[in-house]
Amino acid sequence: MRLTTYTDYSLRILIYLGTQPEKQLTNIKKLSELFNISNNHLSKIIFDLGKLGLIGTTRGRNGGIQLAKRPIDINLGYVIRETEKNLDIVECFDEKNNTCKISSCCRLKPIFKEALDAYFKVLDSYTLNDLIHNAKALNALLN
Amino acid sequence: MRLTTYTDYSLRILIYLGTQPEKQLTNIKKLSELFNISNNHLSKIIFDLGKLGLIGTTRGRNGGIQLAKRPIDINLGYVIRETEKNLDIVECFDEKNNTCKISSCCRLKPIFKEALDAYFKVLDSYTLNDLIHNAKALNALLN
Repeated sequence: MRLTTYTDYSLRILIYLGTQPEKQLTNIKKLSELFNISNNHLSKIIFDLGKLGLIGTTRGRNGGIQLAKRPIDINLGYVIRETEKNLDIVECFDEKNNTCKISSCCRLKPIFKEALDAYFKVLDSYTLNDLIHNAKALNALLN
Repeated sequence: MRLTTYTDYSLRILIYLGTQPEKQLTNIKKLSELFNISNNHLSKIIFDLGKLGLIGTTRGRNGGIQLAKRPIDINLGYVIRETEKNLDIVECFDEKNNTCKISSCCRLKPIFKEALDAYFKVLDSYTLNDLIHNAKALNALLN
């Protein structure tokens, strides 16, 4: 059930950027130290969040990253779906590689699909804004 | 999000036993071949399902295993909670080992808790009986 470290760090980065004043650029090295993530791992996550249109990068000596959308426009369900690449709860979700002999008449798959839908229905009802409603206190911890 | 192989096989074993006629004992070797699980792994799962009161073991030459409860009395949410030992979706669910600096004022934990509750609410509404409603067809695939 655990989310990947990749998703976990993606969320932390978005939360951090969400607490920053508008137009404030954040230095990648600072984020790397703050969350104790290797530069390589962090660069990959930032590149991918950029491709999703969630963060923007400004190059150059005084460059850095910032949110590319308002926190209220960044849906939590969307972020988890996009960063958590494998949502196959059990083997039979992956029809191509499934080896389970009973999948053709087993009801596990539709039941887990229903449970996963309920899980995402909750996440879809929140945005990054809900995560940072305590931005002042978050900022005090982070700076 | 993926369930462990341990949980996946626990479910397959319960489904198989649920399709068997009452009082019919199932040979462990047969299960091992059927689901292509090593004897060691299978024995551990059967031992644990026994401790949970879900299956019973009869020793001896003609021994084997069978369900210890009616399929309708084996709740799916209960099975998943008990077999999926780690339900920590993100690091901060584990207060003891959490290293995330922002957990004291971050709202991720209660939101994921709400999503996980919605997920289990669905699973809690099903029993093993719902998984084997097609017992005849399952049996044809399994025997």
